Amino acid sequence: MNDRMTPAPDQGLPAPLLAELQTRFGPRFSTAAAVREQHGRDESSFVDVNPPDAVVFAEDVADVQALLALAGRYAVPVIPFGAGSSLEGHLLAVRGGISLDVSRMNRVLAIDTADMTATVQPGVTRMQLNQALKGTGLFFPVDPGADASIGGMCATRASGTNAVRYGTMRENVLALQVVTAAGEIVHTGTRARKSSAGYDLTRLMVGSEGTLGVFTEIVVRLHPLPEAQSAAVCSFPGIADAVGAAIDIVQSGIPIARMELIDANTVRMVNRYSKLDLREEPMLLMEFHGTPASVREQAETVEALAGEHGGAAFAWATDPEARSRLWTARHHAYFAAIASIPGCRAISTDTCVPISRLAECLLESVREADEMGVPYSLVGHVGDGNFHFGYLIDPHKPEQRERAELLNARLVARAIRLDGTCSGEHGIGMHKMDFLVQEAGLPAVELMRAIKRVFDPQNILNPGKVLWGAAGQGALRRSWATSVATPP
Amino acid sequence: MNDRMTPAPDQGLPAPLLAELQTRFGPRFSTAAAVREQHGRDESSFVDVNPPDAVVFAEDVADVQALLALAGRYAVPVIPFGAGSSLEGHLLAVRGGISLDVSRMNRVLAIDTADMTATVQPGVTRMQLNQALKGTGLFFPVDPGADASIGGMCATRASGTNAVRYGTMRENVLALQVVTAAGEIVHTGTRARKSSAGYDLTRLMVGSEGTLGVFTEIVVRLHPLPEAQSAAVCSFPGIADAVGAAIDIVQSGIPIARMELIDANTVRMVNRYSKLDLREEPMLLMEFHGTPASVREQAETVEALAGEHGGAAFAWATDPEARSRLWTARHHAYFAAIASIPGCRAISTDTCVPISRLAECLLESVREADEMGVPYSLVGHVGDGNFHFGYLIDPHKPEQRERAELLNARLVARAIRLDGTCSGEHGIGMHKMDFLVQEAGLPAVELMRAIKRVFDPQNILNPGKVLWGAAGQGALRRSWATSVATPP
Repeated sequence: MNDRMTPAPDQGLPAPLLAELQTRFGPRFSTAAAVREQHGRDESSFVDVNPPDAVVFAEDVADVQALLALAGRYAVPVIPFGAGSSLEGHLLAVRGGISLDVSRMNRVLAIDTADMTATVQPGVTRMQLNQALKGTGLFFPVDPGADASIGGMCATRASGTNAVRYGTMRENVLALQVVTAAGEIVHTGTRARKSSAGYDLTRLMVGSEGTLGVFTEIVVRLHPLPEAQSAAVCSFPGIADAVGAAIDIVQSGIPIARMELIDANTVRMVNRYSKLDLREEPMLLMEFHGTPASVREQAETVEALAGEHGGAAFAWATDPEARSRLWTARHHAYFAAIASIPGCRAISTDTCVPISRLAECLLESVREADEMGVPYSLVGHVGDGNFHFGYLIDPHKPEQRERAELLNARLVARAIRLDGTCSGEHGIGMHKMDFLVQEAGLPAVELMRAIKRVFDPQNILNPGKVLWGAAGQGALRRSWATSVATPP
Repeated sequence: MNDRMTPAPDQGLPAPLLAELQTRFGPRFSTAAAVREQHGRDESSFVDVNPPDAVVFAEDVADVQALLALAGRYAVPVIPFGAGSSLEGHLLAVRGGISLDVSRMNRVLAIDTADMTATVQPGVTRMQLNQALKGTGLFFPVDPGADASIGGMCATRASGTNAVRYGTMRENVLALQVVTAAGEIVHTGTRARKSSAGYDLTRLMVGSEGTLGVFTEIVVRLHPLPEAQSAAVCSFPGIADAVGAAIDIVQSGIPIARMELIDANTVRMVNRYSKLDLREEPMLLMEFHGTPASVREQAETVEALAGEHGGAAFAWATDPEARSRLWTARHHAYFAAIASIPGCRAISTDTCVPISRLAECLLESVREADEMGVPYSLVGHVGDGNFHFGYLIDPHKPEQRERAELLNARLVARAIRLDGTCSGEHGIGMHKMDFLVQEAGLPAVELMRAIKRVFDPQNILNPGKVLWGAAGQGALRRSWATSVATPP
C-alpha cells in the first residue's frame, strides 16, 4: 500500500542482464544518456523523474516476448513507449527499468474495407493510419489531438474531439494481440462487431496503461467518411452561455460529430500563437457529418439552439481548407498555452461528468481558478461532459505546483460528487492514483489490484502507475521523486 | 479441467444451511418442488438437469449480500435468476445450489432524462423500462426479442435487432453495483459517458454470466426516440441475394436501425403461427430512424441497393401499427419455430462474423443443414454479421441432439476460421465452453480462469458456466447430465 514511502537506492540494471540485453538486441538496445533522456519525458508536468536505465527498440512480437522474459527473470520494470505524448507520466521510469520503445513496430498490417476494420502494430500513429486509409472512403475517428500511437491510445483508453459521435478507444478496439508479463502471446476478441464469448479481456486491456500486458497488434474499427462535413464556430457572451448551448445541443439528440468549448482566455492564446483573429470570447467549435441534406439540417438546428443562449457570429465552412483553419484554434490550444509563459508546463485536468452537471462543475472550477489567480487554458469536449484546464506552472517552483494540484484535487472531488470521473481520457498514470481510490472506492480498487497481481505477479509491467503498491514486492528499484507526489 | 467427468452424489443442501436460510429469508425462501422446477428451466434445449435445491427471492441488496455470505460459508452454488429467458442453460443448477431470483428487485430507481441514463434494479425487464420511459422522449434500445431482465441482459452481454445502430449491452451499460462472492458491495463506472479511470471493471462484469458477481444496480444509457421511424420489408429470390443486399447496405454506411434476415422456411412457420400472409421467400426486415427527411433518404438508398440484388416487393410502413405488424414476423420467429413440431426444442446457434464473411459462413451452413435434413429456423441480425439457426430437435432423442450439435460445431469452427465468434449475443453458458477455448485459445482462457479464481475463489457463483473447472475444488455438488454434453 505505501511503497511510495520506501525509496530503494538507484542500483541501475544488473550487469548480467545488461549483457543479455546487449546479446539479444544488439543495436536495438541502448543505454546512451540521450536515448534514455528522450524516453524519460512525456507531455506531463513531471520533470524530476530519472530516465529509464536502458531502452530497447522492439521490431516484432518476438522482441517483446524476449524482453519480457528477460525482465521477468531479473524482476526489472518494463515501460511500453509509443509516441511519448502521455499527459500523466505513464512513460516515466518511476522505478527505473527498461523503456520498451514500440515505435518501430509501425506497420499497418491489414485494412479490411468491407468489414471496416484495420489491423495495426502498436507504433502506428493515428495520422499514419488515416494516411494509409486515403482513398478507401474510411477513416479512424479517435482523435486525442496529439499524433499519438494507436498502442498508446489503446493503453490510455483515449478519445478526443469526436468521441461524442464515434466513441472512444473502448468502443473502437475490436481485438488485441498482447504479450503478457510471462512473455506469452494472448489473443483477445475477434473481428466480429460484437461477441458474448467469455470475459471481455479486450476491454480489460484497453485502458490498462501498460500494466497488464504489452499490445503487439490492435484491430480497430473504421468508419465511413461522411459524404458531407461542415464546421461551425459560434461565440457567446459568457462561458455559462456556451455551456448552456452545448447542453441543449446534446440533449436535442443531434448526432453532432464534434463540439468543443474554448474559453476566451484560450482563444486569446491561440490568436497570438497561430496568428489568427478569432473573436476573443468563449466559443463552441462544431462539426457535422452526414449527407449534404442532413448536415444542413443539423447546422440549422444548432444555430437556432445557440441563438437562444446568445450565440452570435455563427460562421460555418464546408470546404476542407476553411474547416481546417477553424480547427487550428482547437488543435493548437495546448501548445499555445504552453508557449504563453516561457518555460512553463501544464497540469492538465481531465474530469468528465454527466452533461446535466457540466455547468455546475465547470463554472465553479473557473471561479475557483480565477480566485486563486492561477493562469490556465480551458478547452472541453463538452458534448461528452469532459473538459481540461491546463494550469500553467513553472515545474521547478513547488508552490506553483501545489496551488495547481489543490485546484485539481478540488475539481476532481467536485466531479466525483456530481457522478463523474477523475479521468475522461488521459488515464491515471502516476498522477491520479489517489483520485482513482476516491472515485472507485476501495473494494473496486482491491479487485483491480487482484487482477494486476494475477496478470503481473512480479509487478514488472509499468509499475507505479494506476494502482499504488500493486505488488508490494519485487521490481521496486527506485522510488518516484517526492517532488511530484500527488496531493493528499 | 475435467470436473465434468467427476459427478458428485446429489446431497442436497446441508441441514444447518437450510435452517439459516429459513431464518434469514422466511417466506422469501422456498424448497417447494414447483418453485424449484420453475427455476430449473430456461429457453435452452437442456431438459435433463435437476432443479436447484432451493430458491431465494431477493428484495434488496442486503438480501443478496446475506445469501452470498451464507453460500460462501457452506460452499454452495448460487445461480442468479432474472426472467428465465436464457438460451444457453445459464440458469440451470448443474451443480445444485440455490437459485437467487432477483425478479422482485424490479424498481426503476432513477431516470435522468437530461443525461439520458436510467438506474434500474436487475429484475426490471426491458419492456418495463421502456414503459417507464413513456413521455420522456427517450428509449432503451437493446432488444433481444424476449422480455428479458436488464440484469440477465447485462450478464449475457445481450444485444438483438437494433445493435447495428445502438450497440449492445457492452456499449449501453455505464455503471454497476455488484455484490461479490464474498458478499461485498462494489461500484464500477460512473454516469459520465466515458472514463479512463482504471481497469474497466464494468465491461469485465458485463458478459460474465453471473460467475463474477451479482448485479444489484445497473446504470444504462438511453437514446432519444427518433423523430421519424419507418419499417420496410423486402423479399429476395434466394438467400444469397438477401445476404448480398445486407452486406451492401452495411458497407454503404447508412445508419440503419435494424436489418433482420428471415429465411423462406421461417417465414412459412411465422405465417402459420401468426396467421400472416407474408411472401414465403427470404426477406430482409429493416427499420430506419432519423428526421423525416433522413429516414426517407435512407429508405430510398436501401431500396435501390436491394433492387440490385433482385429485391422485390419493397414495402414500407411509417405508422406504428403497420410497423409493428411487419415486426411480428421477426418477433414470433422463435416461438413459431418451436410450435412447428409439437414437443420440440431449438438448439440455437449464435455465431457472428465480419460482414465480408457473412455470405460464406451462412450459405455453407444452410447447405450443410439441408444436406443433413435437420429441420431449422433461420433468422439473423445480419447488419452485425450475427445469425441464428434454431435446429429443431426432440430433446429426449439423443441422436437428434447429436446431429444438431454436429452442425453447430461445424458452424462454430467455420465462424472462428472466418475471424468470427461462437457467440454474438447469447453467451457461453453451459453450452459453448469448448467453443470458447477454440475461439480464444488456451492462454486467454487461462487468464479468464485466473480472474474467476480471484473474484470467486470457492467457485460458488454460477459454477459450471463459461469456463470448465474454473476452481477445481469446492461447490462441486453435482455434475451436469452427460446427455447434454457439448460436441467434441
